[in-house]
Amino acid sequence: MADQPQQRYPLSVLYQFCVDVLQAVDVPAESAAMVADSLTRADACGLYSHGSVRLLPVYIRRLQAGTTRARPNMQVVRQRKSVAVLDGDGGLGQVVGCRAMQMAVEMARATGTGTVAVRNSSHFGTSAYFLQQVVATDMIGVVMTNAPSNMPPWGGRSPYFGTNPLAIGLPCGEESPVILDMSTSVVARGKIVIAAQMGQRIPEGWAIDKDGNPTQDAEAALTGAVLPVGGYKGSGLALIIDALCGVLSGAAFGAHIVNLYDEGDQVQNLGHFFMAMDVDAFMEVDRFKARMDQFLREVRSQPRMAGVERIYTPGEIEAKATKQSEIFGVALPNVAELDRLADRLHLPRLGEHLPAAVEESAD
Amino acid sequence: MADQPQQRYPLSVLYQFCVDVLQAVDVPAESAAMVADSLTRADACGLYSHGSVRLLPVYIRRLQAGTTRARPNMQVVRQRKSVAVLDGDGGLGQVVGCRAMQMAVEMARATGTGTVAVRNSSHFGTSAYFLQQVVATDMIGVVMTNAPSNMPPWGGRSPYFGTNPLAIGLPCGEESPVILDMSTSVVARGKIVIAAQMGQRIPEGWAIDKDGNPTQDAEAALTGAVLPVGGYKGSGLALIIDALCGVLSGAAFGAHIVNLYDEGDQVQNLGHFFMAMDVDAFMEVDRFKARMDQFLREVRSQPRMAGVERIYTPGEIEAKATKQSEIFGVALPNVAELDRLADRLHLPRLGEHLPAAVEESAD
Repeated sequence: MADQPQQRYPLSVLYQFCVDVLQAVDVPAESAAMVADSLTRADACGLYSHGSVRLLPVYIRRLQAGTTRARPNMQVVRQRKSVAVLDGDGGLGQVVGCRAMQMAVEMARATGTGTVAVRNSSHFGTSAYFLQQVVATDMIGVVMTNAPSNMPPWGGRSPYFGTNPLAIGLPCGEESPVILDMSTSVVARGKIVIAAQMGQRIPEGWAIDKDGNPTQDAEAALTGAVLPVGGYKGSGLALIIDALCGVLSGAAFGAHIVNLYDEGDQVQNLGHFFMAMDVDAFMEVDRFKARMDQFLREVRSQPRMAGVERIYTPGEIEAKATKQSEIFGVALPNVAELDRLADRLHLPRLGEHLPAAVEESAD
Repeated sequence: MADQPQQRYPLSVLYQFCVDVLQAVDVPAESAAMVADSLTRADACGLYSHGSVRLLPVYIRRLQAGTTRARPNMQVVRQRKSVAVLDGDGGLGQVVGCRAMQMAVEMARATGTGTVAVRNSSHFGTSAYFLQQVVATDMIGVVMTNAPSNMPPWGGRSPYFGTNPLAIGLPCGEESPVILDMSTSVVARGKIVIAAQMGQRIPEGWAIDKDGNPTQDAEAALTGAVLPVGGYKGSGLALIIDALCGVLSGAAFGAHIVNLYDEGDQVQNLGHFFMAMDVDAFMEVDRFKARMDQFLREVRSQPRMAGVERIYTPGEIEAKATKQSEIFGVALPNVAELDRLADRLHLPRLGEHLPAAVEESAD
């Protein structure tokens, strides 16, 4: 088994599987397409933690419980020329987020920038998904979200903040867009999960145990909390992001946010923050893109530390991985779970979507 | 000498000294007031590295050389309803920055947000100075600037980015405003300077030597570079900040930015990025402030790690230090340099500004 090449699935197959699963639990076609696109792109660039593996535990269970709404009645509750507050009515985060980002882009086209604060939303997948849409319109995008508690403020020992990510995207010319999508914790909790599964110790500074003591034991870290990146800096950023996403939008904030996994019976009321800035309001678009290309090439051509093969700019690794996946398909880490999900919904399994020739070659 | 209590200077005395010095090199009264205010506030909150100690090496020398302009002809070179690009004509950063922030606030009042990208500027002191002004108008502020190279991109060993700071301020109700003002490096270079002066070693991960090797030798670090906070995260943030401040505004970026100290004969062409968001466009201001107060109090009341006496929120320590300085005056680290500056400009020394009674008590 271990010697067999891992099955790779064409992105179109994975996408259609996600669409079918979502439509099976009453998500309308257009909304299912957004979520499926977000999950497939995450898998395609190797960010499996935000890909199809989340379908069952995060999306389907909550949709079936009604704590995420398949057909939300989203409403703009406050608006000025460059600002809006959107109530997501408990809809899928990708669906609410796409609406918000679209509104931000429309305002930016008119006034130069558009900002949309969102409340009553739910897990929206990767921030990069929305940024890809914005940079394609020659705009700069900013995306933030708050998240369930799993990080203490600096100096604290109990989770209060989420690992609230900050994401920014800028269009480029010949180079692929800059897409920075970073949590405010030292590492994603997923890396600690993997270390625990492999019986490995984790580096100093990543996490604390449930009593607030620094730990390198991955199992102990999982019952404790991850630490903010750069100490008070990551903690401060997480606070700012929650202030913009939660406090300012009217959503839940801090420890008031419902955990995705443990509390599937409660509405999450996540908050997000979307911003679009029209490059043309600042500078001719072609000139900006040429300057970005020059900038990125200069950064990458800096002298390297010993052992470093290449300096990467934000989003470059993911863009390369995505191109690979578009050609060769994507190797998923947990097809068995997707199979269980298909069975549960009486849908064909992922493998059954494969063209016969492709399936044969994998035998 | 060492046993003598250190002389403390009333803030009004320090402020007037700064005004006099700036006016002596042809800075108009209104502009001198802005710069003096910025420097005095930095000293008052204990951020001496951005206070009056910078008068001689950063401001006065460049003003006298004409590479910073005492009387710039600032111009708006591009504008939409919520966006402007301001050319600072090589003026003092505080003066250019105050104009930019004022424009951002005016646009935010009309449309909900205002964004101003700035080029042809120079060192603007602390970002917090501008944020204090914005939060006082019940707006949220964002301030960024690029800076001369002293940090490599992650994986690199030569300085390319500045320690490009990101600063965000939010108004609160009974609590003092949130003011996060953080560089994108692990530590300020100033801390390494102090360690070198005291013959101390620096912690692992702060810096590399001139050959790109990790070093704990402070002297070696000073000829090398400081490292980005959180590895690729700080490096990515520094890149984004330079893209917004430098690339987007039309200013210099990366290694093209002129060093403040070594190249006083060249125009710096720094770029900044200012944003104001009117809270009222998102939510009733009183409700927002009450929610911020609740949020901050919750963060501070989290269970603490062993040895931590108090959890501070961003800006809290500086607000407390400022209150102390307002009452007791400020103890400056380098009065001798200010004395040399006064002598050079044929102005009274700082001590000569003191009321007689205060000076006597220090003898």
